[in-house]
Amino acid sequence: MSKLTNVFETAAWLKERDNFLFITHKRPDGDTIGSAAALTQGLRELGKTAYVLFNPEVTPRYAGFVEDYWATEDFEPEFIIAIDTATVDLFPKNALQYEKSIALCIDHHGSNTKYAEILCLHADRAACGEIIFDILMSISGSISSLTAERLYVALSTDTGCFSFGNTTANTLYVASLLVQAGAPNKDLNKKLFRTKSHGRIKIEGLITSGIEYFFDDKVAVSTITREMIETSGANEDDLDDIAALPGSIEGVYIGITIRELSSVNDCKVSIRTRAPYDAQTICAEFGGGGHKLAAGCSLTKTADEVREALMGVLEDIFR
Amino acid sequence: MSKLTNVFETAAWLKERDNFLFITHKRPDGDTIGSAAALTQGLRELGKTAYVLFNPEVTPRYAGFVEDYWATEDFEPEFIIAIDTATVDLFPKNALQYEKSIALCIDHHGSNTKYAEILCLHADRAACGEIIFDILMSISGSISSLTAERLYVALSTDTGCFSFGNTTANTLYVASLLVQAGAPNKDLNKKLFRTKSHGRIKIEGLITSGIEYFFDDKVAVSTITREMIETSGANEDDLDDIAALPGSIEGVYIGITIRELSSVNDCKVSIRTRAPYDAQTICAEFGGGGHKLAAGCSLTKTADEVREALMGVLEDIFR
Repeated sequence: MSKLTNVFETAAWLKERDNFLFITHKRPDGDTIGSAAALTQGLRELGKTAYVLFNPEVTPRYAGFVEDYWATEDFEPEFIIAIDTATVDLFPKNALQYEKSIALCIDHHGSNTKYAEILCLHADRAACGEIIFDILMSISGSISSLTAERLYVALSTDTGCFSFGNTTANTLYVASLLVQAGAPNKDLNKKLFRTKSHGRIKIEGLITSGIEYFFDDKVAVSTITREMIETSGANEDDLDDIAALPGSIEGVYIGITIRELSSVNDCKVSIRTRAPYDAQTICAEFGGGGHKLAAGCSLTKTADEVREALMGVLEDIFR
Repeated sequence: MSKLTNVFETAAWLKERDNFLFITHKRPDGDTIGSAAALTQGLRELGKTAYVLFNPEVTPRYAGFVEDYWATEDFEPEFIIAIDTATVDLFPKNALQYEKSIALCIDHHGSNTKYAEILCLHADRAACGEIIFDILMSISGSISSLTAERLYVALSTDTGCFSFGNTTANTLYVASLLVQAGAPNKDLNKKLFRTKSHGRIKIEGLITSGIEYFFDDKVAVSTITREMIETSGANEDDLDDIAALPGSIEGVYIGITIRELSSVNDCKVSIRTRAPYDAQTICAEFGGGGHKLAAGCSLTKTADEVREALMGVLEDIFR
């Protein structure tokens, strides 16, 4: 059970110490990478020694913002700090050695399992980057343009460029100060939100032309086959947030994405719902889980079989 | 030639007067509608009489934010004020009667032709809504949630939900204050940016599967035929910003959208470029115009002929 703390105490704690190693979570997103990179950059500017533990799953989309900070093999950290990571299950494999010795965790997930000695948790923040901003400002009262750039990556990617429902007045306020501090928001937005790869364009075209509607168009199902991924040349970065597509269609309450994984008999299902429909309940029928409005499950069936099984469950809901 | 003024003088000017009629521009977007609606709402809350002149081209996307303020037939305005409208050429037909008697224009377009008696111009603002915010705050020091909602529509739509290159620290700062004042950003973003109509989904699918590449994929051309619009059922709202699509593809420097209008022999061309390529120069070859990075022209040719003509001009550029 963690001792709970706040941004000011965390700032003081960091100020008194040195030799930090930051851990990011599995399938790293812009928030975990940007937050860890910003904290490393900010602490280095104060003369501290800080590194980010290499994350083997980092994608090209985010690698450039963190690769200067990857820990060297000979670095012997004094304090291991987990960033934006709710449970040790989300540690990358190479971080499991530190599982029981996390001195501090800085996080915004209400589901945090309190595995760290000290926990700085603010579940009301859209991005962990907002918490890092407060901590750095509390330490030194200002941030550099390099730090601001990395924090902008954290905030903007966790909020879909300030369009998701988690975006608060504080998110926008911090973003405004980051731009003032030199975060190149124009270039970052172009790269992160306004550029589609050839693979993304192709896979989106294939997906949208194949969307199927059920139950008076209240349910939209998109199927992503291995063949579609091959044809389009889409990679993991290209498929980022693709599960949001069917749920974004006007009038759709339940958006379902069925994706073939290692074989045609191995499918991952992502469900996004709008109230009153509950994605978690639907996925629980197949041993999956998640949140009320976004959940997932895995089935050892073909996409057609998965669709049929799902429709069976939905028929009960719509009747 | 207008007398130039600033937000504080404009606030004082409005405070001293009454009976305002606001004019929005042709093909009205969220900024002109949101700004005019917010100013009307804000002034009404101060006990003033204010209306927006009906704009016959308003689309369902924005109508709900302004329809409560449409001027009644018997309203006799004392002061006609143009909002977000750079030239009288952009006046809707029913506003042309006021062409020579515009008391005040509030605008953020550097190209404003100074047709109003007084001009409050801030070309550094991404949205006219940012200027309206400063004016209303200068008048009364606070804004209501209704006003904040309309201003949020103005700011967010003119910046692609804060993702376009025009977004500044001030845009984000004002947005943060609007959310604090009660602008329902979650619902507005869902409606304005995260919901795609069936028509939009279908037309996007048709467009993306038909994109053609030229000159080592540096040029992407999308063609929107009348047949595609019919098949998809897409309306004008659905086609909003669709010209940005080919230019958003990775590695593309010149994105071209050719759209058939009233007949197959009547095409509108929209060109978006990245430096060093100049959209304006290309469109000027066909009698069109615009800005360096976004321009357009009209041709009395079929889409195929248009494409060929454009390629001729581009060949000179790429050689």
